[in-house]
Amino acid sequence: MAVTKASKNGAVIKAPGLEGIVALDSSLSFIDGSKGELIYVGYEIDDLARNTSFEEVGFLLWNGRLPDKAELANLNESLCAERILPPMVLDILKSCPEDANPMAALRTCVSALAHFDAEADDKSPEANYRKAIRLTARIPTIIAAFDRVRKGLEPIEPLRTGSTAFNFLYMLNGEEPGQAAERTFDACLVLHAEHGLNASTFTGRVIGSTLSDMYSSIVGAIGALKGPLHGGANIEVMKTLLEIDRSGVDPANVVRDKLAASERIMGFGHRVYKTLDPRASILRDMVEAVSDEKGSRKWYDMSIAMMEVMEREKRLYPNVDFFSASVYYMLGIDIDLFTPIFAMSRITGWTAHLLEQWKANRLIRPRAEYVGPRDLKVQPIDSRT
Amino acid sequence: MAVTKASKNGAVIKAPGLEGIVALDSSLSFIDGSKGELIYVGYEIDDLARNTSFEEVGFLLWNGRLPDKAELANLNESLCAERILPPMVLDILKSCPEDANPMAALRTCVSALAHFDAEADDKSPEANYRKAIRLTARIPTIIAAFDRVRKGLEPIEPLRTGSTAFNFLYMLNGEEPGQAAERTFDACLVLHAEHGLNASTFTGRVIGSTLSDMYSSIVGAIGALKGPLHGGANIEVMKTLLEIDRSGVDPANVVRDKLAASERIMGFGHRVYKTLDPRASILRDMVEAVSDEKGSRKWYDMSIAMMEVMEREKRLYPNVDFFSASVYYMLGIDIDLFTPIFAMSRITGWTAHLLEQWKANRLIRPRAEYVGPRDLKVQPIDSRT
Repeated sequence: MAVTKASKNGAVIKAPGLEGIVALDSSLSFIDGSKGELIYVGYEIDDLARNTSFEEVGFLLWNGRLPDKAELANLNESLCAERILPPMVLDILKSCPEDANPMAALRTCVSALAHFDAEADDKSPEANYRKAIRLTARIPTIIAAFDRVRKGLEPIEPLRTGSTAFNFLYMLNGEEPGQAAERTFDACLVLHAEHGLNASTFTGRVIGSTLSDMYSSIVGAIGALKGPLHGGANIEVMKTLLEIDRSGVDPANVVRDKLAASERIMGFGHRVYKTLDPRASILRDMVEAVSDEKGSRKWYDMSIAMMEVMEREKRLYPNVDFFSASVYYMLGIDIDLFTPIFAMSRITGWTAHLLEQWKANRLIRPRAEYVGPRDLKVQPIDSRT
Repeated sequence: MAVTKASKNGAVIKAPGLEGIVALDSSLSFIDGSKGELIYVGYEIDDLARNTSFEEVGFLLWNGRLPDKAELANLNESLCAERILPPMVLDILKSCPEDANPMAALRTCVSALAHFDAEADDKSPEANYRKAIRLTARIPTIIAAFDRVRKGLEPIEPLRTGSTAFNFLYMLNGEEPGQAAERTFDACLVLHAEHGLNASTFTGRVIGSTLSDMYSSIVGAIGALKGPLHGGANIEVMKTLLEIDRSGVDPANVVRDKLAASERIMGFGHRVYKTLDPRASILRDMVEAVSDEKGSRKWYDMSIAMMEVMEREKRLYPNVDFFSASVYYMLGIDIDLFTPIFAMSRITGWTAHLLEQWKANRLIRPRAEYVGPRDLKVQPIDSRT
């Protein structure tokens, strides 16, 4: 890309929404939307999703290289050891109203984790690395416990063994997931781990740039991800699939009717990827495997039918949200947990960006242009109108 | 200022830390650092601090004009009615370890307030305005209760009457403040209510720009204010004053020794204000009045002595943090509450910025430039080194 340096001589550049502005350098991920390419620290997403686990990708993002066998065993051991929540965080979950917003509950619980972390305000790189692991270990436990509690069920204690994906599905559903389920969910976590300077990652780095702590930064990132312009697209996809299922109408016809009525169909096209979203094709095969393991190809067939019409009629391709929706649903995950699960994966990218930010910190702070009134004088209250 | 528009033709401008970039227009405040000028919505800060209350300034920031008598009475009534905390938020405070970071506790409690606000995810302008009032009413109660609980005291229920300043000092100390104390603390709240697109306000707007909710945005702003590059300067000022007091040495000599040793003295000079910080001179007179009401001019005299040396030897003038430190201390406020009190005032500016953001929302999202490796291939774990 053509890069110009902002002038240093006091002149000011106006860039609403910061569009077209490069705020920082990063070694974490590269997106080439025109080629449909996404890489994490040099590796193509396809290569990572097929050949590494979520835990290996976490290590890659935090350390800038893939782990060897001993390092991975070590990381897995730390993750297993850190999964249990402080009792007070469970109490917060139990005190939430039944209809509490899952992202709000996650935000509060992650904030409260800090109260019970002796290293919360230790800003050494070593303590921050340990906190990144701790957060990655505990967020799945929070989400699963939240869902159990609101359903009147006892939270299930995390296992001291097994992958993040296996363990989360076990804590959520109370039974061990099948191989395809674990494998596919693990791949979903890999696919969502990192995606450049999106709004939540940017939020985390802005907070971190004041030299605030990791918990404050992550709590802010969770708040940004809660926004419908950021997280939440796969929720809309699943709502459409459920609506088609209830109606009993041929999915291809539903899509055609929606297109004729100029309705937007979620899960197709992407602001960044102008051709294929590279994450979607990886997921497509996996949805099929999970469908077979679960013994029903209903959602898979419906998705393929929708996809074919969209490709033919609009030349729009499915994005990562399109297939993750039915995967999550088949895995027994309520649709309002899709965004928390995004957070459970992205926590690795968020914390990696913070480690990167703090290696060479610089306050991130643009300006506003004042366009309000001037030269007013306070009038006595009785004479104000 | 000279303003250039960022180019739209796909070219990219590099601006580390977003320095010199105007991200948005705002009608809330204007700072002219070279003239030592700060205005809120057209009014000079001096005029506001001397002639209006914190509640009037809140109304001004939220509505773009000062209230008339009926509107102010109405706002005060709403604030009084909204001060009480949901019992679960008090439970969170009671479960905090004694040495919990006050900003972390505030962050968790404000996040938890959302669980008990039926309007938390109502994004209408009316509901957002009510939430701005609710947050302004409840943050003082959280801070006072936090301090009581950690000292083993029962939290004091807020009064159903009286100003924010009066009520906070009453809930904190268990006794009604004197006139000069209330007046000065009220002025401190006015002086800190708004200050352009600083890092916490910017954080709030970035989160809000995803169309996330007000609680998420404010929780993020609190996290940013917790950073020592943003909040916290008056804590350092008070530590210096306490150190001088304990040493028994003439403050002028302490300053001279520190200058000779090239140590930085906090509370003087300002990144933005190149002449006087207009907020400092207002506070100076008020510190004197509080000193007389409290019957001791110790901190005032010490501050003036320091100030005189700094002016003479370095041509540096005190900033708002220099005088707010001793004001807060004289009012019986522990020094680690200084930043939470900043939040208790700035909540008006933060929420006003959010109301402004959502009037014409646009996602705030710069880019990163990828500087990491390329073209790597995942190797089998046994062959990694």
